[in-house]
Amino acid sequence: FFVCSAFRTDFYLLLKNKFFLFFTINFSRHSAVVISGTELARQIHREIQRDVEELVAHGNMRPHLGVILVGDDPASHTYVKNKTRAATILGISSDTVVRPSSVSQEELLELIDEMNRDWRVSGLLVQLPLPEHINERAVCNAIAPEKDVDGFHIVNIGKLCLDQRSMVPATPAAVWEMIKRAGIETVGKNVLVAGRSKNVGMPIAMLLHTDRNHERPGGKLILMTERKNKKFLFLFIDKYAFLFPLWSGVPGLITADMVKKGAAVIDVGINRNLDQHTGKVRLIGDVDFEGVKEKAGFITPVPGGVGPMTVAMLMKNTVTAARNALMH
Amino acid sequence: FFVCSAFRTDFYLLLKNKFFLFFTINFSRHSAVVISGTELARQIHREIQRDVEELVAHGNMRPHLGVILVGDDPASHTYVKNKTRAATILGISSDTVVRPSSVSQEELLELIDEMNRDWRVSGLLVQLPLPEHINERAVCNAIAPEKDVDGFHIVNIGKLCLDQRSMVPATPAAVWEMIKRAGIETVGKNVLVAGRSKNVGMPIAMLLHTDRNHERPGGKLILMTERKNKKFLFLFIDKYAFLFPLWSGVPGLITADMVKKGAAVIDVGINRNLDQHTGKVRLIGDVDFEGVKEKAGFITPVPGGVGPMTVAMLMKNTVTAARNALMH
Repeated sequence: FFVCSAFRTDFYLLLKNKFFLFFTINFSRHSAVVISGTELARQIHREIQRDVEELVAHGNMRPHLGVILVGDDPASHTYVKNKTRAATILGISSDTVVRPSSVSQEELLELIDEMNRDWRVSGLLVQLPLPEHINERAVCNAIAPEKDVDGFHIVNIGKLCLDQRSMVPATPAAVWEMIKRAGIETVGKNVLVAGRSKNVGMPIAMLLHTDRNHERPGGKLILMTERKNKKFLFLFIDKYAFLFPLWSGVPGLITADMVKKGAAVIDVGINRNLDQHTGKVRLIGDVDFEGVKEKAGFITPVPGGVGPMTVAMLMKNTVTAARNALMH
Repeated sequence: FFVCSAFRTDFYLLLKNKFFLFFTINFSRHSAVVISGTELARQIHREIQRDVEELVAHGNMRPHLGVILVGDDPASHTYVKNKTRAATILGISSDTVVRPSSVSQEELLELIDEMNRDWRVSGLLVQLPLPEHINERAVCNAIAPEKDVDGFHIVNIGKLCLDQRSMVPATPAAVWEMIKRAGIETVGKNVLVAGRSKNVGMPIAMLLHTDRNHERPGGKLILMTERKNKKFLFLFIDKYAFLFPLWSGVPGLITADMVKKGAAVIDVGINRNLDQHTGKVRLIGDVDFEGVKEKAGFITPVPGGVGPMTVAMLMKNTVTAARNALMH
């Protein structure tokens, strides 16, 4: 079975893959282009700073990010601090409105409504998750779509799925931006999205589900699969040019034997691992980076990959929201 | 290559498929359950008639379908006639407002706005396609989401993609209803959607992109591929449990050798073929029905499959719209 599978793969490579020669004669090693999210984020930061100063120089208000933070979850507090700190560095003003976890849904919706109507707030986000008694969907839909920098409003999701200009959620936007800036060809490529979440997996699949004439030319085939299903992943991955493993919660889920030579592997996974020797917590992705690097065409590291790009894209959305306000 | 592929397929069948025995000893034939869209539509019609009469008996207004028809396209006129005739039979009143193809987008949007605000109109649809000078997306988004029986409004698409209750476009709704009423298991199944259109392919993929706890339990793997790519389809179809070939424009695109034994094959294709002998135009699907029937577990015919179900689902949406109005 496996021999047979390998033979089939080789045949496929023979037809399709420029790395075939290296593969068969088996003495030359090929190593992937490592796409540095840190580096690309720096590039985007410079563009945002320039855009912000240009807006201000033209007599417009400085873009302002409003953040609503509910409860005492330390992770949420850290995320919000990272976002507002990034905003400050880029010349975007911000404020964080904190509410106790006992806040009622009604109070929260009133607060959102107030900030929607406040012309000084360009972009608005409510840090998730919210306490159990609050309906997150109702909250996401309460934010004015043109201020919705997280892109979770039903209207922004609908537009995204129909290829219309919209606020794209930061993580999928980060993945797309990395593909674009790394110069990875997307037309007619096959895409595997490992992970079916509505927040990340679905929008990424939709971003690549377009036709050839689109600003984001779509893949030939879009595959969304359950994460954690290693046997199944194995059956399919060798045929795919793109691969987005998403928060599988299984560090090193994707190994070199599963990846097609030359594939672009974008790792959206974040797993916290305790290092036995140092006792420190280390962030690692879903991909066995060292192994896959030797086989893939492009790869993103964790940390320093999609993570820093996500915050950059949130900031970019905030500038877009400020521009939206000018048009209203 | 092909031998190898077949071997792999057999191995897969050996593990997974109850029909393996019949397959190897090769004297017994298995034939698919043919899901009659005509029959199921009749069943749904009875339910709609009952619902309509119940609404009226409770003192509510009879559900009313408003249709806007632009230009002289004979196909569009036929489609509209079929829809309003179906409405009449089911006890749903309707009217069709006709405008010349020279109508301006502004006039059309005003007309929609008027009908949105008219409480006598429960459901509203604009027959597509529209003339070149009119932006179809703007028109679809102008219809009040709660009256949008075609389910093309950005809000309804967004809700559909996020698994929220919404007006589901008639064709995807028809496909889903056929799966449900035929008792086809969906949990953990693999789904192939051949055709990537935003109107049909995408919503069907999204309808099956849910988790196990949903009213529509999702597939394990969702695959959306370009139509017309036969070589590619061949590589993948034998691994899929569901199959939705969508308007490939290639009659008989899907043949028995491509289909996994026991798969459910739902044919959304409609191709007009001129019969050489009789000189008559005959409707046929994308699936080689006679061949695939001998291998699949479930199959839908064309005509008499998804087609009649589509009109039934549009009528069901109209009753839903009438119920929405009661809640406003």
